[in-house]
Amino acid sequence: MERKAISKAVLKRLPGYLSYLKSLPDGSSTYISATALANALDMGEVQVRKDLAMVSDGGRPKIGYLRESLIEDISQFLGYDNTTDAILVGAGKLGQALLDYGGFEAYGLNILAAFDVKPTVDQTEGGKPVLHIDKLEEFCHTHKVLMGITTVPAECAQGVCDRLIKNGIKAIWNFAPTHLDVPEGILVQNENMATSLAVLSMHLQAQMKEKK
Amino acid sequence: MERKAISKAVLKRLPGYLSYLKSLPDGSSTYISATALANALDMGEVQVRKDLAMVSDGGRPKIGYLRESLIEDISQFLGYDNTTDAILVGAGKLGQALLDYGGFEAYGLNILAAFDVKPTVDQTEGGKPVLHIDKLEEFCHTHKVLMGITTVPAECAQGVCDRLIKNGIKAIWNFAPTHLDVPEGILVQNENMATSLAVLSMHLQAQMKEKK
Repeated sequence: MERKAISKAVLKRLPGYLSYLKSLPDGSSTYISATALANALDMGEVQVRKDLAMVSDGGRPKIGYLRESLIEDISQFLGYDNTTDAILVGAGKLGQALLDYGGFEAYGLNILAAFDVKPTVDQTEGGKPVLHIDKLEEFCHTHKVLMGITTVPAECAQGVCDRLIKNGIKAIWNFAPTHLDVPEGILVQNENMATSLAVLSMHLQAQMKEKK
Repeated sequence: MERKAISKAVLKRLPGYLSYLKSLPDGSSTYISATALANALDMGEVQVRKDLAMVSDGGRPKIGYLRESLIEDISQFLGYDNTTDAILVGAGKLGQALLDYGGFEAYGLNILAAFDVKPTVDQTEGGKPVLHIDKLEEFCHTHKVLMGITTVPAECAQGVCDRLIKNGIKAIWNFAPTHLDVPEGILVQNENMATSLAVLSMHLQAQMKEKK
């Protein structure tokens, strides 16, 4: 179907539908309705209906969507079908884990190599190359990489970010717990684990209080 | 200061302020105003002012906040001062990386041990124990753990989640790319890397289109 403009809010909800649809056991019904999805995910029915209409025109009144087609439509919409090459800077524990993590391929992400100021290994256990940061420029230009992943300490993140942008990177997935300043046209997606921990810790504190 | 009720939206913004404040170089001004923070983080001034007033009463007109005190106030508010013990289920690559990741201590998280259906090691490189999942019940009761981290495949996540809740876990940090059903009073915080990847991939697709 024709691609419509889509808000970031919708975009953030789509992977949720997708993972739910994929998580349904093999024997589940072939069709799924927006109502069923809304109930399962504890969301508003109108919202789900609108979101799905943005990405698929396969919905049929009173029947819903063919589950397999909906999975395909959402995946395609999210670009999980097109592989994106990325490089990673900061080959510490988190960086190496991300490099070797098999799960990203399903989302179209292919991490080509990692860079570090002081590489402690030549390659990860999974065989991905770990290169000295001095090789970054050449590598980016040879491979025309557009996505960078930063898993460096907070205090180095801005410098790394600037260097990535200078070398053609247009989107940065930032795991460093800090804010990055970027020029227009560059997207930073923060994987802010600190935020998650704050939400969790707050919930536990509230629970303890109730108990008292 | 007295603790006020706080919305999840505010809570999610606080770590951002904190990491920015901490990222400022040592020689920076001792005071920082809500205006300066708003500009640096590209946020609305009124919002920043309101958010900070929720967690600190140290703001002075025309001067702002003493930076060190504000850092302390936000940290305390977020519970980063109180250590929360957690266990992790799923000692694969991602799980082991999280176990050994030193950065969580700054946020008050202490992962005691990991559990797996098929532990491949006795302990992580960092010395954290990796136990068979059968030891989960005993461990939870002995250590009175309230937080669980799930780094299992999507198809196992609901089962693990149910088992954690049965053993007293009140908050779940879920890295499995799937939706979890939980009873009232239990908080699930999804670390949805798939969502991040969708946002990034969408941005790159839009960029490519512009170029054409």
